[in-house]
Amino acid sequence: MPRKVDHRERRELLADALMRLAASGGLEEVSLRHVAAEAGVSTGMVQHYFRTKDEMMTFALGMVTDRIRERSQAELVPGPPLELVRGLLLQVLPLDETRRLENHVVLAFLAYAAVKPSIASGLRQLAAETRTFIADQLRAAGPADGVDPERAAAGLLALVDGLGLQLLSQQYDEEEAVAALDAQLALLFGGHPGRG
Amino acid sequence: MPRKVDHRERRELLADALMRLAASGGLEEVSLRHVAAEAGVSTGMVQHYFRTKDEMMTFALGMVTDRIRERSQAELVPGPPLELVRGLLLQVLPLDETRRLENHVVLAFLAYAAVKPSIASGLRQLAAETRTFIADQLRAAGPADGVDPERAAAGLLALVDGLGLQLLSQQYDEEEAVAALDAQLALLFGGHPGRG
Repeated sequence: MPRKVDHRERRELLADALMRLAASGGLEEVSLRHVAAEAGVSTGMVQHYFRTKDEMMTFALGMVTDRIRERSQAELVPGPPLELVRGLLLQVLPLDETRRLENHVVLAFLAYAAVKPSIASGLRQLAAETRTFIADQLRAAGPADGVDPERAAAGLLALVDGLGLQLLSQQYDEEEAVAALDAQLALLFGGHPGRG
Repeated sequence: MPRKVDHRERRELLADALMRLAASGGLEEVSLRHVAAEAGVSTGMVQHYFRTKDEMMTFALGMVTDRIRERSQAELVPGPPLELVRGLLLQVLPLDETRRLENHVVLAFLAYAAVKPSIASGLRQLAAETRTFIADQLRAAGPADGVDPERAAAGLLALVDGLGLQLLSQQYDEEEAVAALDAQLALLFGGHPGRG
């Protein structure tokens, strides 16, 4: 252990504890006291890093969006636009444990943001970046007839948000969700088949 | 006032109080005690009708889905399939105060259902009915080239769920959301323009 405390790392440890709590019990389980217990530290220590629950939640949400962004950029290998968009969107859907955990947290935050919109500015920014990326790829591919890239990008991202919501509440299985995404991609990109 | 207590009505009054709390403060504000205070009755009275918070939430969610279903059916006047589907989906989007309240509650429930999937069975059933209705309308209209009615219905409903989520967390304005819906409808129904 380095002697100097790494504050960023400490905050991330606490935010990870918050995420585990949100994923297992929902945001109701999230309080400075519960996070302290989950992380195995004192409540005073949590209060040293975060004065309020809102501050802690805003930090954790920023951490989640940073991770999604980094993972998406790492996945970006040169390829046809449809594959790029598909790869990006599969990084968002809750198709493995990491992404399920992230989706739980994002969903809990969105429910919270519906009553406190200010905390969702990080999410809004990530969504705007993603829409721009998708619209650019559609323009590069030459979209199908009658497809407006901006509107289509907005619709596609909404579809993925909705699928994520439905997967988390078990309205669907994963295969159906990916098939619905692929059907939409084929429609927008003019009938190129998605990968198997 | 009738002398005999209408139990159904009592439960609905309590569920309405629950909805107001969920919409203003999120599910964290929802407890038997808070609902009692909001409805202006004793905690004992609430406990007489609902033994647990889960029981109360399940009832309130059923009430919301019943209302959405009834309103949708009341809206169904004979018309071309695209108009029927559009009318139905506009009933779901949070475009006025009633629907914003309902969306808040559904979103809060979905966040809760992600950790307790059993309570979302009513939502799953409403979603399945809606998908079947949309797929039937697509078949009746003769869908655009390459559109599979079942997959397209699933995708369309996911898109609307996602738009609702984005509207509530203020990622969008209402006009953009309706435009994204109309673009998708035009795509699926083969380029008929949506109404203005």
